[in-house]
Amino acid sequence: MAAYDTVIRGGTVVTASDMVRADIGIAGGRVAALGENLDEGAHEIDAGGRLVMPGGVDSHCHIEQPGSTGGTNADTFTSGSISAACGGTTTTISFSPQVRGRGVREAMDGYAALARKSVIDYCFHIIVNDPSDAVIEEELPELIAEGHRSIKVFMTYPSNRMDDAQLLKVFACAKKHGAFVCVHAENHDAIMWMTDRLLEAGLTSPRYHAWSKPPVVEREAVHRVIALAELLDLPIQVFHVTCAEAAEEIRRAQARGIKVFGETCPQYLTLTADDMDRDGFEGAKFICSPAPRTEEHHEAIWRALIDGTLGIVSSDHAPYSFDDPRGKALHGANARFSEIPNGIPGLETRLPLVFSEGVAAGRIGPCEFVALTSANPARLFGLYPKKGTIAVGSDADIAIWDAEREVTIRSDDLHTQTDYTPYEGMSVTGWPVMTLSRGEVIWNDGEVTAEPGRGRWLKREPYDYIRPTGRFTAPFDPIALRKLEE
Amino acid sequence: MAAYDTVIRGGTVVTASDMVRADIGIAGGRVAALGENLDEGAHEIDAGGRLVMPGGVDSHCHIEQPGSTGGTNADTFTSGSISAACGGTTTTISFSPQVRGRGVREAMDGYAALARKSVIDYCFHIIVNDPSDAVIEEELPELIAEGHRSIKVFMTYPSNRMDDAQLLKVFACAKKHGAFVCVHAENHDAIMWMTDRLLEAGLTSPRYHAWSKPPVVEREAVHRVIALAELLDLPIQVFHVTCAEAAEEIRRAQARGIKVFGETCPQYLTLTADDMDRDGFEGAKFICSPAPRTEEHHEAIWRALIDGTLGIVSSDHAPYSFDDPRGKALHGANARFSEIPNGIPGLETRLPLVFSEGVAAGRIGPCEFVALTSANPARLFGLYPKKGTIAVGSDADIAIWDAEREVTIRSDDLHTQTDYTPYEGMSVTGWPVMTLSRGEVIWNDGEVTAEPGRGRWLKREPYDYIRPTGRFTAPFDPIALRKLEE
Amino acid sequence: MAAYDTVIRGGTVVTASDMVRADIGIAGGRVAALGENLDEGAHEIDAGGRLVMPGGVDSHCHIEQPGSTGGTNADTFTSGSISAACGGTTTTISFSPQVRGRGVREAMDGYAALARKSVIDYCFHIIVNDPSDAVIEEELPELIAEGHRSIKVFMTYPSNRMDDAQLLKVFACAKKHGAFVCVHAENHDAIMWMTDRLLEAGLTSPRYHAWSKPPVVEREAVHRVIALAELLDLPIQVFHVTCAEAAEEIRRAQARGIKVFGETCPQYLTLTADDMDRDGFEGAKFICSPAPRTEEHHEAIWRALIDGTLGIVSSDHAPYSFDDPRGKALHGANARFSEIPNGIPGLETRLPLVFSEGVAAGRIGPCEFVALTSANPARLFGLYPKKGTIAVGSDADIAIWDAEREVTIRSDDLHTQTDYTPYEGMSVTGWPVMTLSRGEVIWNDGEVTAEPGRGRWLKREPYDYIRPTGRFTAPFDPIALRKLEE
Amino acid sequence: MAAYDTVIRGGTVVTASDMVRADIGIAGGRVAALGENLDEGAHEIDAGGRLVMPGGVDSHCHIEQPGSTGGTNADTFTSGSISAACGGTTTTISFSPQVRGRGVREAMDGYAALARKSVIDYCFHIIVNDPSDAVIEEELPELIAEGHRSIKVFMTYPSNRMDDAQLLKVFACAKKHGAFVCVHAENHDAIMWMTDRLLEAGLTSPRYHAWSKPPVVEREAVHRVIALAELLDLPIQVFHVTCAEAAEEIRRAQARGIKVFGETCPQYLTLTADDMDRDGFEGAKFICSPAPRTEEHHEAIWRALIDGTLGIVSSDHAPYSFDDPRGKALHGANARFSEIPNGIPGLETRLPLVFSEGVAAGRIGPCEFVALTSANPARLFGLYPKKGTIAVGSDADIAIWDAEREVTIRSDDLHTQTDYTPYEGMSVTGWPVMTLSRGEVIWNDGEVTAEPGRGRWLKREPYDYIRPTGRFTAPFDPIALRKLEE
Repeated sequence: MAAYDTVIRGGTVVTASDMVRADIGIAGGRVAALGENLDEGAHEIDAGGRLVMPGGVDSHCHIEQPGSTGGTNADTFTSGSISAACGGTTTTISFSPQVRGRGVREAMDGYAALARKSVIDYCFHIIVNDPSDAVIEEELPELIAEGHRSIKVFMTYPSNRMDDAQLLKVFACAKKHGAFVCVHAENHDAIMWMTDRLLEAGLTSPRYHAWSKPPVVEREAVHRVIALAELLDLPIQVFHVTCAEAAEEIRRAQARGIKVFGETCPQYLTLTADDMDRDGFEGAKFICSPAPRTEEHHEAIWRALIDGTLGIVSSDHAPYSFDDPRGKALHGANARFSEIPNGIPGLETRLPLVFSEGVAAGRIGPCEFVALTSANPARLFGLYPKKGTIAVGSDADIAIWDAEREVTIRSDDLHTQTDYTPYEGMSVTGWPVMTLSRGEVIWNDGEVTAEPGRGRWLKREPYDYIRPTGRFTAPFDPIALRKLEE
Repeated sequence: MAAYDTVIRGGTVVTASDMVRADIGIAGGRVAALGENLDEGAHEIDAGGRLVMPGGVDSHCHIEQPGSTGGTNADTFTSGSISAACGGTTTTISFSPQVRGRGVREAMDGYAALARKSVIDYCFHIIVNDPSDAVIEEELPELIAEGHRSIKVFMTYPSNRMDDAQLLKVFACAKKHGAFVCVHAENHDAIMWMTDRLLEAGLTSPRYHAWSKPPVVEREAVHRVIALAELLDLPIQVFHVTCAEAAEEIRRAQARGIKVFGETCPQYLTLTADDMDRDGFEGAKFICSPAPRTEEHHEAIWRALIDGTLGIVSSDHAPYSFDDPRGKALHGANARFSEIPNGIPGLETRLPLVFSEGVAAGRIGPCEFVALTSANPARLFGLYPKKGTIAVGSDADIAIWDAEREVTIRSDDLHTQTDYTPYEGMSVTGWPVMTLSRGEVIWNDGEVTAEPGRGRWLKREPYDYIRPTGRFTAPFDPIALRKLEE
Repeated sequence: MAAYDTVIRGGTVVTASDMVRADIGIAGGRVAALGENLDEGAHEIDAGGRLVMPGGVDSHCHIEQPGSTGGTNADTFTSGSISAACGGTTTTISFSPQVRGRGVREAMDGYAALARKSVIDYCFHIIVNDPSDAVIEEELPELIAEGHRSIKVFMTYPSNRMDDAQLLKVFACAKKHGAFVCVHAENHDAIMWMTDRLLEAGLTSPRYHAWSKPPVVEREAVHRVIALAELLDLPIQVFHVTCAEAAEEIRRAQARGIKVFGETCPQYLTLTADDMDRDGFEGAKFICSPAPRTEEHHEAIWRALIDGTLGIVSSDHAPYSFDDPRGKALHGANARFSEIPNGIPGLETRLPLVFSEGVAAGRIGPCEFVALTSANPARLFGLYPKKGTIAVGSDADIAIWDAEREVTIRSDDLHTQTDYTPYEGMSVTGWPVMTLSRGEVIWNDGEVTAEPGRGRWLKREPYDYIRPTGRFTAPFDPIALRKLEE
Repeated sequence: MAAYDTVIRGGTVVTASDMVRADIGIAGGRVAALGENLDEGAHEIDAGGRLVMPGGVDSHCHIEQPGSTGGTNADTFTSGSISAACGGTTTTISFSPQVRGRGVREAMDGYAALARKSVIDYCFHIIVNDPSDAVIEEELPELIAEGHRSIKVFMTYPSNRMDDAQLLKVFACAKKHGAFVCVHAENHDAIMWMTDRLLEAGLTSPRYHAWSKPPVVEREAVHRVIALAELLDLPIQVFHVTCAEAAEEIRRAQARGIKVFGETCPQYLTLTADDMDRDGFEGAKFICSPAPRTEEHHEAIWRALIDGTLGIVSSDHAPYSFDDPRGKALHGANARFSEIPNGIPGLETRLPLVFSEGVAAGRIGPCEFVALTSANPARLFGLYPKKGTIAVGSDADIAIWDAEREVTIRSDDLHTQTDYTPYEGMSVTGWPVMTLSRGEVIWNDGEVTAEPGRGRWLKREPYDYIRPTGRFTAPFDPIALRKLEE
């Protein structure tokens, strides 16, 4: 009998801290051994000197999510998860969306049912937009206890935004019951005000999307949500940081000892506001929120990734087809920027874009790449070391990369059901050629070999990042407390 | 016929920039000449080598203001303005308070009628808390055009707070019509949340007032309102800055070129949160908002005054008697901290406290004292050089100071109708011994010589501080604009 | 008998804080009165509604200074001071330069003798470059006591630079005896190293002057000298701040409560490194140190002037003729950048440039202009209120300005003996049309009416800016002290 | 034949990124496999559920170093390396000290000969204090090419300090030939000046050591050396950062994209300046440079370790015996603070102190502990993944920890030849119970089992951290270049 179900042989195994020549022995879907010249496996894979990395963990993607910002999500869990797998990603965290006036339990039940068609493992952030007593006192505590350990809140979008009072209510609940909170941070009222001004002035084309939400509205909200989290000593993550100013607020907070984490996305490292200024309706393809900025901000965001201010690059995959009346053109091809569904597809291209701009371009090494795209999201969301690494006992979620492969990104080659990619024609260096999930090959350089429904939901126990610093204890402010108590 | 109505002879005349030996010739209520050995006046005042300074301009005081935070304002315009005059102040800017659901015109009409009993000159900030269409499109533009050139908005207090959308509405109106905006900046929702937690925990005594509104809620709101002002390129002033963190946000904004100004008050240079922790209900005497902090913050605020981050020290006079059921004990002497009317008396003690802690203590010179308490508020609110200086043509609003006089502050010696002072027993060096308003002696070392009703409303024309920087043009963000336009 | 020697009638009198319609009565060379409709003077000047401002105080100019950086100073005290007067300046502070190995007394004796030919009043900074025991223990204390209350030190230039040990020696002496210290702050070793690299690489033309001393070497030295001053609690001024980074270091120090002041010059608001890249040797006309930067830095410096980080705009007049073998071409017209005498003429153009870029361009008002160019330098160097203002008792040093006059700057029209101006062809708005020194008209719109030698040396008593903060006491560090003593 | 020479079974293997249950198979001194239930080894070690961590890498320790700051180093390579091993450390980087006027090759030859007695592997930083042409052009390039890839420079100490010109010379050489530079950053002249003042004032006892070198002199030098490195685009590490201010300078530089790294030591997390104020000469036991600060700084340094500003905790082991005339009392027990040899022993206590204050106290997790004390120093100095991790192919340098063991530190229990420990009597939680070097057990809970001389020198090839950012290219300044070239 073979010692292992599968052995991946002859590759360079990369984790967030190590990059060594080693074989990987897989048994029961997990990594059973790492070694030199491991015994034979029932199935042998020749890595041929390639990089063998943990499958990506995409901790911020919208898949088959009903009704969020208008438009219909172009991907099902099947198409989305296949797309992820083809791009080297083996775990997704997508969003179970509360509908205002209704419960988070109901939303979760419906959404979890859809997810059963995933080809890769998954779990969910609970979107809360209506913190009713039932939600705060019953449903959230129960869902958290059941293993849904993260919550997403919005500071903007008419459908989802909460005010500070609502945020504090959710934050206190998260702290009490042990859930980690993520935030879409932009100042809603300022965006609405800007949008109204632009529309009044007849400035309605896609480019004005960026004008309606400039960096200052992101900086404001990032600072505010940090202050609220500081008040409660609640760890938080700021989603999709796009600009120097917002990154600086996070850096300052970290220096004060606040447990605040930051994420960005490939679009904020590669796209600019100018992309929304293409001819006709073409600019709509690039509309997402926050809006892409400038190349100067790209460099600032890279600096923030390198100095550790930001720790994750996720996709914020939010796919709307271009030539589909349920997609970008929901309100027609002359729609005002404010009516166009927000979001771009990105599950499949996330890792190649970060690898190319990061590793191939010399900004970071392979270990940092793994950290930013796999290990850190797995850690921050309580999936580590099951996901996010190649270590004894971890799930054998693995992507084998051809680090030299030159690929020109074409929508036709991608597996999302979205009918375009914002990166059409862009050249990248490096692409995953094989993906394994729990030891099973699900993508083999051109061939999808996964069975829909094989993915499993990942229950999460309480974990370290949820823990407050202990230096402050709500409801008492650190400074007031310190001074008055002494 | 005498060359002048009055000559003040033999003093050291101090302005925001100069301190020179000179006589002052007054005619028609204005300064007609400054010189050596001026010709005789019909009335002669011997300054005897003392400091002769512009009367104080208190740009932030609540006098006879109806219904703001519960409780009844202990001062009428007569008592309040006499109190001011006895403390060397010759101009007040108090607040015309809109009542929600009603108009700002109506509020102004009523309030302006009360002010006719003032013994000194005055004007008003328009409190807006309900920016209805009528207010924004008709009433405010008209009031501004009539010469009411400043607006106050609140980010907290149930009765007055506006959300960001409302703030932007008022800001845009102020920018369009030429009014200057001042802000009470604390995060309302956070304060409410903290208050609820404290009350739930049975922590109800006055000391917990400070706990309910720690520095972080002030820092948050200061940063936020600066961001909103930045978006519109609207100059603003932040009222009553109390802590290092909030001052730092203002300093950072100024360094970015934002036109943001900051004010503090004597209570934030002398009182601490500990004062609210005195026996029994005594702590209620010190309850005001934001809350006094610590001595460390006093020093930080002095540094911010010295490096120019903050430019004004006003009183925020908000007088509620202690032994009066309409005052601090509105809800009884066992009231929960959140029910106690907010505010302390300070019109009369403002200048002596700043002089003593500033000039006598060696932190600043007499010119800086004049700048912080008279010239700068007059400038920022469009009263300069009519008020705030002793220059040819300016109103002869003058205070003669005995810079060496040692005074122990006693409520019994003060002229407010409030029955206590939070500074009871505190010793100060320096006190005004004579005050003139438009050339008329209204306070003469122990004797009030002013006639109620002699004060006049000060109409204000558009002035420089209202002017946007011009570097940004709403509704278009500077950065978006610059990048997309290029 | 006329009440006044001279009356200036019908102008708008501007000081650092006031701008009012007033007549000025002058007697005995001093301002005797300011008023409306003053009595007649023996001499009457009709200001015709123009701006009547204090004469400029140029607290940083090199006039007839022997041997500093190679080359021969093109101006004598006569030509230099006439040039100043024609540009509205009525006081200069130039430099008495120690020669290494010799004394500061000897230098002062020689230099003071030259200054007797000035047409305007003056005093000196003592350049110390060799703090021998005799200098530190005898000569400096005596010169300071005699009224030479300011010292200049250099952190670069082979002829003048001192190392940190020498700086500390001079700083301690200045603190002990009551002198104010100014610093040329650039890292000498870094400049030398860069220069050597550039010359080795054959990069020798004038443009490489800027390359040899980039902003980072200025930021370094500014931070360092602030640290040394912090250690001793010694107030200092940093001369000619040119870049955002250096200004930021000063701003940070001020926020910490350090008494550090900053100055800039018109060249750093108007010229750029590109100017040194003109054809042939033409670029040499713009070589000065620190080097002009970019327009982005111009704006940063304006922000620093506006938020108070920097308080003075001086000329750093250091005139070397272009077509003179003793001037820019000292080593020939193919000289390497490092051999070209450093400095540009600027005494006469300083005020018009600042007025035009500041007041006419809408960045600052006339009062701020007076503060930056006259009042603040007079204050910082102990000349106030004798100089720097128009107040009763102050010297009648006055410039009457035509604020609307459009002037194209031409070397031919200027009064310096330098044969070029770096501002040739630049258009400015605003020019002084009449200058008075101690009540005497010395420049009357085209006509120089001053007598060489009428200028007087200004003895300076100890003054406030020299005073330490008292918060730190050398030799003991504040933090070490506080912690260990408690 | 056994599959492995040794198997460590049943432990929790910790690396900088992972913490998993796994057996370790060792063959030929290296890690051959990690797995579940590995085949038997010739030698079996039962980890019994304990933490199995990479041996510590101490990248900053002075062992048997001749003549540095006076006094005689109490340890030989044998005693020092045994002490290290007993504290869980398996690699040292100590210092080959140039003697002024002589060469670095000569120093290296002599020092490397001493190191052959080490029981663990080692390499050296080359101390350069006299960058003669021979050193810069011949010796350093050769030594670097031979595999000595790091250089240490001093900004203070009479025997070692270099000025900025010398630093730049060494920096340019390091950049050209591929060596990494570390810096002792304190302002020499300021320390000398302070020392002179203290001694003059008769303040000579050990406590005044801290007074002579306050935080401001550290902040100054850190900022300066960063500026010099910035100029050349040279990566550097700042040794032993002790205070909030210095950490802040590093944080700012990292945010600008500068490749600057920072280290601290256990003494700056546990000792304070008060320790030097103990009775009699006892305070001398704590004299090291920079000086320990206060508890407030301890917390600031922890924050800097947690937010990534600082990445390494080394020992700065510099052992001088207390009761030995060659040690602390070199100049007698009444010696002035400035005469007392600088340094404290710490090789053996480093890891337990960091584990206890870090992991046991809840500030960091075991992975972060490994990163700070083993992986990061190995990476920064080119030893990774041979040292610093437990990965397939890495050297089997391993420490097994009893994370719960409570130990009271006693000099008598330690293995250094120093006769005291500054941590005498301090209680810690966690201690290494077994240490392996290249698979060989060298410390077994009480028993030293290593053979002197078994340690090997570690040759280092060029590695990533040496690489410039490429954004700047000396000799041309980034900003000048960008602006002038465009």
